[in-house]
Amino acid sequence: MRSSQFFLSTLKEAPSDAEVVSQKLMLRAGLIKRAAAGIYTWMPLGLRTLRKVEAIVREEMNRSGALELLMPAVQPAELWQESGRWEKYGPELLRFKDRHQRDFVIGPTHEEVITDVVRREVKSYRQLPIHLYQVQSKFRDEIRPRFGVMRGREFLMKDGYSFHASFDDLKREYQVMYDTYSRIFTRLGLQFRAVAADTGSIGGTGSHEFHVLADSGEDDIAYCPDSDYAANVELAEALAPSTPRPAAGQALAKVATPGQTACADVAAFLKTDLTRVVKAIAVVSEDDEGKPHFALLLVRGDHELNEIKASKLAGLTDFRFASDAEVEQYLGCQPGYIGPVGVDAGKVRVIADRTVAAMADFVCGANEAGFHLTGVNFGRDLAEPTEVADLRNVVAGDPSPDGKGVLGICRGIEVGHIFQLRTKYAEALNCKFLDDNGREQVMEMGCYGIGVSRIVGAAIEQNYDDKGIIFPAAIAPFTVAIVPMGYHKSEDIRDAANALYEELQNAGIDVLLDDRNERPGSMFADMELIGIPHRVVIGEKGLAAGQVEYKGRRDEVATMVARDTIVAHLLESLAK
Amino acid sequence: MRSSQFFLSTLKEAPSDAEVVSQKLMLRAGLIKRAAAGIYTWMPLGLRTLRKVEAIVREEMNRSGALELLMPAVQPAELWQESGRWEKYGPELLRFKDRHQRDFVIGPTHEEVITDVVRREVKSYRQLPIHLYQVQSKFRDEIRPRFGVMRGREFLMKDGYSFHASFDDLKREYQVMYDTYSRIFTRLGLQFRAVAADTGSIGGTGSHEFHVLADSGEDDIAYCPDSDYAANVELAEALAPSTPRPAAGQALAKVATPGQTACADVAAFLKTDLTRVVKAIAVVSEDDEGKPHFALLLVRGDHELNEIKASKLAGLTDFRFASDAEVEQYLGCQPGYIGPVGVDAGKVRVIADRTVAAMADFVCGANEAGFHLTGVNFGRDLAEPTEVADLRNVVAGDPSPDGKGVLGICRGIEVGHIFQLRTKYAEALNCKFLDDNGREQVMEMGCYGIGVSRIVGAAIEQNYDDKGIIFPAAIAPFTVAIVPMGYHKSEDIRDAANALYEELQNAGIDVLLDDRNERPGSMFADMELIGIPHRVVIGEKGLAAGQVEYKGRRDEVATMVARDTIVAHLLESLAK
Repeated sequence: MRSSQFFLSTLKEAPSDAEVVSQKLMLRAGLIKRAAAGIYTWMPLGLRTLRKVEAIVREEMNRSGALELLMPAVQPAELWQESGRWEKYGPELLRFKDRHQRDFVIGPTHEEVITDVVRREVKSYRQLPIHLYQVQSKFRDEIRPRFGVMRGREFLMKDGYSFHASFDDLKREYQVMYDTYSRIFTRLGLQFRAVAADTGSIGGTGSHEFHVLADSGEDDIAYCPDSDYAANVELAEALAPSTPRPAAGQALAKVATPGQTACADVAAFLKTDLTRVVKAIAVVSEDDEGKPHFALLLVRGDHELNEIKASKLAGLTDFRFASDAEVEQYLGCQPGYIGPVGVDAGKVRVIADRTVAAMADFVCGANEAGFHLTGVNFGRDLAEPTEVADLRNVVAGDPSPDGKGVLGICRGIEVGHIFQLRTKYAEALNCKFLDDNGREQVMEMGCYGIGVSRIVGAAIEQNYDDKGIIFPAAIAPFTVAIVPMGYHKSEDIRDAANALYEELQNAGIDVLLDDRNERPGSMFADMELIGIPHRVVIGEKGLAAGQVEYKGRRDEVATMVARDTIVAHLLESLAK
Repeated sequence: MRSSQFFLSTLKEAPSDAEVVSQKLMLRAGLIKRAAAGIYTWMPLGLRTLRKVEAIVREEMNRSGALELLMPAVQPAELWQESGRWEKYGPELLRFKDRHQRDFVIGPTHEEVITDVVRREVKSYRQLPIHLYQVQSKFRDEIRPRFGVMRGREFLMKDGYSFHASFDDLKREYQVMYDTYSRIFTRLGLQFRAVAADTGSIGGTGSHEFHVLADSGEDDIAYCPDSDYAANVELAEALAPSTPRPAAGQALAKVATPGQTACADVAAFLKTDLTRVVKAIAVVSEDDEGKPHFALLLVRGDHELNEIKASKLAGLTDFRFASDAEVEQYLGCQPGYIGPVGVDAGKVRVIADRTVAAMADFVCGANEAGFHLTGVNFGRDLAEPTEVADLRNVVAGDPSPDGKGVLGICRGIEVGHIFQLRTKYAEALNCKFLDDNGREQVMEMGCYGIGVSRIVGAAIEQNYDDKGIIFPAAIAPFTVAIVPMGYHKSEDIRDAANALYEELQNAGIDVLLDDRNERPGSMFADMELIGIPHRVVIGEKGLAAGQVEYKGRRDEVATMVARDTIVAHLLESLAK
């Protein structure tokens, strides 16, 4: 493509209401134009990238054996009433009446429609499994659309739905999709993680999110750099320390800590490390008869209590934090100085985090206002903990739950989600088949989504610098930019630029020849802003020496390359 | 693709509410499934055809230099208020409020959005011309959706919009689009006509419709088989006869025609041909002061008055048919026996159709109840007509207005429309540019639409037989079907089928191997119903003789072809 025949429209400054880097850069580079809040036009430049993402998704979905179809965006309300989501779904479900006053929705998702198609079409186990997917514009009426295409109202999705005769077969397809998604994001050239959305172990899990790693991501992810383990920080398991508890080395002592109630303050006051302090968190839960039960949850001073994990313990399902009065009642002490030593085991349940259970010579509250204990040891100063559990969020440096290394923490942007729906929709919509014994059975179902337009934003959040976007080659709007110095002034330059343009096109390279009559600085800035990964500059001087200038988008400096070998040079760079 | 890994789902009978052939066949063949009135899911088989149509449209649009973008389906009401269409558009414009009670529409068309993009992006004549298009699902809330995808509510459109610094440049692009559309429909393998939507001459016309020719079409088209002339019947010009008026041969006579008032009855009664009778149609129009003017329009007995043409004559803009009382008042005779002979030229204007002006010895009413005149001649029995005009619809056999042959009449389905919008939207939305003199000017604008999903229906309306669809090869879901006789019983058959399948795939042919365990008759019926253009049957007997059976979808009988040459044979057939 020649710039003169294309539509480039870049801005020096992003609109002031743009919030995140990708939104700013997409608007500045002219990839998108805002039409309304959360609603964008994809300009020719942006659409090239969107279509490249879409093509890779489609190729890999087809390779997996899934079949593409196209469902309507406008869906009859009856199906949503049948599934129960007509009532349950919030106002982000856009509902409207047609001219005959019949209710419809603009589908933000298509479980109902696909289940309706399959229940009408599939009658026998011989027709199963089947996996149908589509790539389609969807609408979700977000209350506060923001971040450009990252959380827009109209967006492009790939959504797939698989139907199975058994749970085992659903699990087989789930693994196929796990591998397919991994291939897709690898081909897109993105750093990503498949994040377990529940237990964190791949076998038997019902849901994975695929995250593009970026500092601006909204989700904290714990991952192992040495394996493919990754999980939402709140869901990752914190293992017990691999080294056993040291022997007691200090004597128990009660020390005055006037006014020091927070762990960090106590550690500073006592000139010890925060990792030597144990935090006791008082909680209460009521049993079926409404009777309150009081418990102390012990976590290390620098760790965070994970409430999801705590609530999974027997008797703590609906726990709440204890009031000051309850703390006084059960421990005879005001909050800030409480601890596990000397408590009445008949009234106070004590649960130690795995890390705490392996601590010796630690600091904790003395259950007396203004005092803490130091040199505390289990089995000597208080009983060995009878309840030890994983109570905390993992932190960087924790051992990976898969035993393959040490966890890191990063931030991610969710761009894909695979999910074992099981029979939820099939049951609600009566989607059944006859098994090989002629018995009627409900189908097992999986669903698999990719945010195609969101990927473009996420790719930029992961790949940019102060000059603009740095697109991975697979999804760059153009792969190579030719920037001639004086296209409109010098016939030599023009001929050389045109000749190289043709050569690259013939080599199957997606090339943009910047033949606009612009200043060189302006052309360079535009090519960098829009994120073209490779740039070839053709100048008078180099040309006289049979050379052109090459610069990769991430390179610090340009290098001179012989004109005769530039195509080979580029092909080599692209193959990397 | 193998049938066993695909999703074929055919029906013996179409649903009873299906109205037209394409709708019945698309439902029977399993190309689409109904989701709601006028809303369909494109099943994997149908989507293959839809995508092939889309790809051809896209390729040719790109080749023309137009740039693809993607506008949102959901559009803010403000733009429609600015253009004035918020009020003017009927209830087929789907309007809704978002959760913040802001008005939106689901765009049935995108003039407003594109004009908004261009007015914000284009400031100078140097950025013009520009042509932007998209391929997008649209929604139009038809009051009575019918005919399957031919008049659905949700449908796939290609809509393009061009912007120009001058009307001349708009006309240049209009011609480019005329040629591009012609190439598209040619590549789709369809018989089509570009139909002038106004004067019928290509130069200077502002609108053309592209029609796929089919007996079930809703529009009557006059076309010249020897040239590319075509126009809506009501708009095609009826030329004057090329032979001059014969000399008078009969004497004027008044004959009794009791009770015979219709031309056909008069002709039958007088044992003459209807083409020898002249029909006088009495009309009245009021001038600016409300004063009525009476006129007789003369057309040949077998011709139809064209009211659009008549209303274009000076003084007849808002004409109406005269009442019986007015006929009595101006001609002194009841309707049914009126004619141009002996009328008062001061009170009655007489306008003769071009064909009538060339008639001699004709029959007309005598202006006396119960009587007609025969042997009537201009210049002898009444004055030479002072006003001669084209007043009638063309009929088959009329000379083509382009002078290149004789007109035929056929029916068509509109699948494309190109239109010189001029400055209508640009003015309403203040879309201006600075010309090369630095003066602000309103842009000239063209728009160009293709009904991508409708084309699938129209292609079927044009190409089917009692066995099912006959897809043109370019848009068939698969180009070749391999039907093995006993894939699951004979290893030889299976090996031969698999080998041919691979060979055809390697040759780049889109092939379906029907490896289902079905009866041969059932497989044949399915392959014919879904319209695959080429079929290869592999049977035990033929194979033993080194042969396979080939049958084109339109062939009466199959032919045996040597197994070794079948690929070459198919490639040859496809190249045709």
